[in-house]
Amino acid sequence: MVKKAIKYYQVNPWAIIEKGFDPTRSMASESIFSLANEYMGVRGFFDEGYSGNSLIGTYFNGLYELPNKPGNAGYKGISKKSHFMVNSVNCFATEIYLNNQLVDLAKGDFSDFTRTLDMRSGELVRKYKYRQNDNLVEITFKRLLDMVNYTNAYQVIEIKVLEGKIDLLLKSHLDYAVKHFGSLKPWKIINSREIPKGFRVLSQTKKSKQNLYTDEEIIVNSGALTTVTDKKQNLSKQIVLTLTKDSRFVLEKRLSHLAFQGEFINCFEDRLEEIVKKRVGYEEALKSNKAYFQKKWAECDIEIEGDEENLQGIRFCIFNLFQTYRGISTNNIGAKGLTGEAYSGHAFWDTETYILPFYLFSDPLVAKKLLMFRYRTLPNAILRAKELDCRGACYPIATLNGDEACELWQHASLQFQPSTGVAFAIWHYVHLTKDYDFLLHYGAQMLVEISRFLASRGDWNPDGTGFGFYGVMGPDEFQMMVHNNTYTNYMAKRTFIYTYEVLKWMRENHPQEFEKLMQKCTLSENEVDDFLTKAQKMIILYDDNTCLFEQHDGFFKLPHIDKNTISVDEFPLYSHWSYDRLYRNDLIKQPDVLMMMFLYNQSFSLEQKRANYEFYEPKTIHESSLSPSIHSILAMELNKSDEALSFFSFATRLDLDDYNRNTSEGLHVTSLSAAWLNIVYGFGGLRSDGKHLKIAPKLPKNWERLKFKIQYRDRTIEVETTKTDSTVKVYGDSLELQIYDQLYLVDKLIKVKTGG
Amino acid sequence: MVKKAIKYYQVNPWAIIEKGFDPTRSMASESIFSLANEYMGVRGFFDEGYSGNSLIGTYFNGLYELPNKPGNAGYKGISKKSHFMVNSVNCFATEIYLNNQLVDLAKGDFSDFTRTLDMRSGELVRKYKYRQNDNLVEITFKRLLDMVNYTNAYQVIEIKVLEGKIDLLLKSHLDYAVKHFGSLKPWKIINSREIPKGFRVLSQTKKSKQNLYTDEEIIVNSGALTTVTDKKQNLSKQIVLTLTKDSRFVLEKRLSHLAFQGEFINCFEDRLEEIVKKRVGYEEALKSNKAYFQKKWAECDIEIEGDEENLQGIRFCIFNLFQTYRGISTNNIGAKGLTGEAYSGHAFWDTETYILPFYLFSDPLVAKKLLMFRYRTLPNAILRAKELDCRGACYPIATLNGDEACELWQHASLQFQPSTGVAFAIWHYVHLTKDYDFLLHYGAQMLVEISRFLASRGDWNPDGTGFGFYGVMGPDEFQMMVHNNTYTNYMAKRTFIYTYEVLKWMRENHPQEFEKLMQKCTLSENEVDDFLTKAQKMIILYDDNTCLFEQHDGFFKLPHIDKNTISVDEFPLYSHWSYDRLYRNDLIKQPDVLMMMFLYNQSFSLEQKRANYEFYEPKTIHESSLSPSIHSILAMELNKSDEALSFFSFATRLDLDDYNRNTSEGLHVTSLSAAWLNIVYGFGGLRSDGKHLKIAPKLPKNWERLKFKIQYRDRTIEVETTKTDSTVKVYGDSLELQIYDQLYLVDKLIKVKTGG
Repeated sequence: MVKKAIKYYQVNPWAIIEKGFDPTRSMASESIFSLANEYMGVRGFFDEGYSGNSLIGTYFNGLYELPNKPGNAGYKGISKKSHFMVNSVNCFATEIYLNNQLVDLAKGDFSDFTRTLDMRSGELVRKYKYRQNDNLVEITFKRLLDMVNYTNAYQVIEIKVLEGKIDLLLKSHLDYAVKHFGSLKPWKIINSREIPKGFRVLSQTKKSKQNLYTDEEIIVNSGALTTVTDKKQNLSKQIVLTLTKDSRFVLEKRLSHLAFQGEFINCFEDRLEEIVKKRVGYEEALKSNKAYFQKKWAECDIEIEGDEENLQGIRFCIFNLFQTYRGISTNNIGAKGLTGEAYSGHAFWDTETYILPFYLFSDPLVAKKLLMFRYRTLPNAILRAKELDCRGACYPIATLNGDEACELWQHASLQFQPSTGVAFAIWHYVHLTKDYDFLLHYGAQMLVEISRFLASRGDWNPDGTGFGFYGVMGPDEFQMMVHNNTYTNYMAKRTFIYTYEVLKWMRENHPQEFEKLMQKCTLSENEVDDFLTKAQKMIILYDDNTCLFEQHDGFFKLPHIDKNTISVDEFPLYSHWSYDRLYRNDLIKQPDVLMMMFLYNQSFSLEQKRANYEFYEPKTIHESSLSPSIHSILAMELNKSDEALSFFSFATRLDLDDYNRNTSEGLHVTSLSAAWLNIVYGFGGLRSDGKHLKIAPKLPKNWERLKFKIQYRDRTIEVETTKTDSTVKVYGDSLELQIYDQLYLVDKLIKVKTGG
Repeated sequence: MVKKAIKYYQVNPWAIIEKGFDPTRSMASESIFSLANEYMGVRGFFDEGYSGNSLIGTYFNGLYELPNKPGNAGYKGISKKSHFMVNSVNCFATEIYLNNQLVDLAKGDFSDFTRTLDMRSGELVRKYKYRQNDNLVEITFKRLLDMVNYTNAYQVIEIKVLEGKIDLLLKSHLDYAVKHFGSLKPWKIINSREIPKGFRVLSQTKKSKQNLYTDEEIIVNSGALTTVTDKKQNLSKQIVLTLTKDSRFVLEKRLSHLAFQGEFINCFEDRLEEIVKKRVGYEEALKSNKAYFQKKWAECDIEIEGDEENLQGIRFCIFNLFQTYRGISTNNIGAKGLTGEAYSGHAFWDTETYILPFYLFSDPLVAKKLLMFRYRTLPNAILRAKELDCRGACYPIATLNGDEACELWQHASLQFQPSTGVAFAIWHYVHLTKDYDFLLHYGAQMLVEISRFLASRGDWNPDGTGFGFYGVMGPDEFQMMVHNNTYTNYMAKRTFIYTYEVLKWMRENHPQEFEKLMQKCTLSENEVDDFLTKAQKMIILYDDNTCLFEQHDGFFKLPHIDKNTISVDEFPLYSHWSYDRLYRNDLIKQPDVLMMMFLYNQSFSLEQKRANYEFYEPKTIHESSLSPSIHSILAMELNKSDEALSFFSFATRLDLDDYNRNTSEGLHVTSLSAAWLNIVYGFGGLRSDGKHLKIAPKLPKNWERLKFKIQYRDRTIEVETTKTDSTVKVYGDSLELQIYDQLYLVDKLIKVKTGG
């Protein structure tokens, strides 16, 4: 179970640098060097093509395709609505012929390869020297997705002759013959026309009929482009030039994309026209990107002294969170962001529980947009609840468009983490931001429908003394069809109580909105009382003597497997064990009881946390990339700093060092945020579920200094910690904060002894 | 939940008679009028074609096809080996044109329709008058599958002109363009040649490459056949004739089929040649069929006085059991026999638990052949256990060829009824027949491999005090992924004990065979002891105070649903409830604890049976056609004769009166046998699991007399019961029998008071 790093990139505080090219790292590097601006994402594949392993991937947030055949689930309530974020036009596709020889790093003779991703600008630069017989050229590729004018993307190709003479043929494509899942070709060109320096193309996905409207402009420093028609589903321009020693050819491609669903209407034409009119050149876009990132880093940078690898690692995490989501769309965050096909671009309950806190503390408006996705898809969740013979709203376990996309009933019909997670996130957001307007107009309605779902999905025990959830799968996906899973029951209990309290508060303080909501949801006072009753009677399996919560009814009676007796080559168990075998012992995949103790951290005593951590952690095999960080955070709280450090060990560099050997498929976006949690909640000791924000920093052994910034109620809070002292600065109005166990009114700055 | 009869056929003690044709009953009648002789089966479809609803079906036992795409199960141990009994050549396909008009009962003008299936000969005769303008003909179709020369099938068509004059065009086909699942065309003609009066054709399934070699001979009483080539995948002969009033045209088609797997080798040619050489005509075949059935009925007829419907019903059941299986093949019994595509011809654990007793008591050699199917497919079961990360042999939940064909992991990976059922059946067979030779050479090896599987699939509870099965689904398929299901644990316990005892007996009495077996199975004394330990430590959830067995750990804590509150249109719940909803309450699909008490009836006290019957029956919704009979048998034992009668009410006529509204798909073959169990075990009071055979007849209210015969240890036992007296006759050597609560040495005859 020991995970090993693959150290491949240069360590640098602000950049990811690849020196020399190892073909075995090619696909992982494509993921690492992905660019994104939430609107679109593009993997770091080679513009000039590569006959070695590669996953060409360009994704537009919210655009999805449907499978050729719907699932053939035989029973009611089993989803057949699978859909997937679709690989779209490769608009960087280029062929470069030097004296009639195609440039291909899998075959050619090259040297001095470097690839650099600058995390302060989002610019990707790749450069190498390429030898063609006696001729030597230096080729540079630059790529940029505009963070401000987010419909725009740029490519720059420079070819400089160092030795000899080159007859250059360069073809620049818009390639719609891209493949998804290795074979499916999802796109069809609806119409295209030549415009002065490129093409304008409307393309559509074959099944879902979603659209991409693209404008291309290619500028070259010499020669002239002509149109080529030698490839189907490709719109291509080419240039033929002779380059002598020291001469330099530069091509700049400017692209604007409009991705949209539904019919094409004229306003899309107008909108694209307007975008193109305002479109600037590469250098200017780069400048505005730099300004954009400067502001973002100022809001939530983390500095680590004494551990350069983790410094680079956490910045890579934050940078990718910047890239993945910033609240410009009405979508959610896929488990792989916009960096690969795996997980089909689906969002999971991870968004509300693992990812939201980063946005809550870096830009609460962005956090709100994530919650608004759930509001927008409330009708889908209501339909889903109906499919499950329930009332209210059941949020999907996996989705891109709001519909349940998971065809495995054992997950889609048994896991209610998404629904209780949304309720938790509403509470967490409102608790931190005091955005009562959101609560009144969106949050409350979601809470009512979620509580309604939970009330109808739960059942009374046979003697009617307790209410609980039967036939569920909690966060620990190695236990299925269990009853009274503590996490599920507890989260539901808190959902009921919060819903009840919000309604009570609305009745008293916002009677009009309250009435409107009651009508909109056809909610009766009886039903509201029912929520409270069910909360009060919720079965929580807890033993006062041991302080243990039982993960579910009967967990303590399950056969025991000592995880240390399992041989390394049996991991991951998912791929090596017979499917049924995963479910009949006390091995735990990821935190379940402990996840509840992380989310509602301050509702549990230290004694309870210790008892449950010590009972459950040894049974946990961490077969989810989300598992170690939660354990690390709790371990820090329990003064088990060695364990905490060991769980943290690969958190920030999970993808950079490819610990799971599947970075090739895309980045673990949820884990990026979990790494942030690990540092800010774990080492920073942030707690956000109590009355006051709590900060209790403690440094890992080898760190000299940790500094992190968070945004909170129109203030920036900066926490800086060394082995001896911790300083908390508040930029903005003074603020009551709990630092370690003491409450302070912090006006500008307070300095305490590290450890409290 | 009240099931209603559709009374459609004439009540008759020895025949099923349809008078007049109701098109809405067409497909159900095709099932009811199915003929079979184990080697092949043919649904009672219209020879002349029918443009209304119809499922043309001809099946050869053991011939199967593979799906176009294998299942795409993502996890280990989930079967992708689906296969299905394949619809084969329609060799009765005929077109009849009267003055150029096609005879079609969906469109034409006909009268005096009768269809009769004679249960004493297996002859199916259909007859009607058909008007074509001013002309009237009487057409008669006869069909017969030869019970003795079982490769042979016959068709007779007679056309008699009653009024007017007819230009007859009749085309007689071998139609290989038959469809399976409504669209799939599974067959390809490999080669065919004309022979004097028909064709000889080798055909093959497209995916599985299984073969059917067919010889056809058509004899007509006037005119001459010519060959037609107007249809693809059809081999056709036609005859053109003018028929005047009172003239009669007769066509007799004689067919021989060889169904085989693997390469065509010359011996198949020789074998078919030999069969054809000996093939007799229709009338002679009919005569030999009559003799065959006479002997069969003499062995195990049931007579009921006072209830003609049940008399006809039970004879229909027995007749179809005769038709379905008689031990001539190496196959098992599909859930629909050879009467339809539903359940894909798969055999379930029903064979050993519901069907075997009929054969055990009518022809033990046939019962042995069923067990030999499990021996033949032991290698498949050993592979299956490996797929499940276990040792030994795991018998499939659904199979035709021995491989697991069920792609639903929740059944295939969690249900071990097939394995414990085979062990039970071996014990039951040997217990009744004393066939120690079978036990030594086949049974013991199966027992070892089954016990080995169970020992490796089970687990110890955390403190090591109890052994049991975790993550299973018992017979009650409304409870999934449960732990320590009493049925599973108890059946496994008995399997371990029997295996241990057999090995001990072999060691003492057959040391050579014992040594051979130990080597063959690489079995150690330690492993044998382990079986015993695990039997002794088996967790059986039993409460001494209430005498209740808990169906599984936690069943008593499940939310309660009163089955009477469920509205009629929600049944079957499988199709109307969200899938997950089936699994989280105390509703029971079919007997589970009670099934154990049926199988090992004499191992439980009357008090235990009463307590568990009274606890579990009210929770049972009988959503399996097998459920009512088991309850009826136990109810009789508990002196609840009204309940017993009510459960029995549709047992014998489930298909004849189409209680489940799906007879159209094929006959419920397992239920045919359950009806037999219901009468012989329920009203006859037969118990076969004690030291002595027990007989304890009790008549249902409205019956005057019940007489049944069983075969037992080279004797025929005849039991005749009236309200007052019961007579047990033994033909053969005298026999110790328990009659009611008393042991008798019965020499020829004993007469006791009914009720004991």
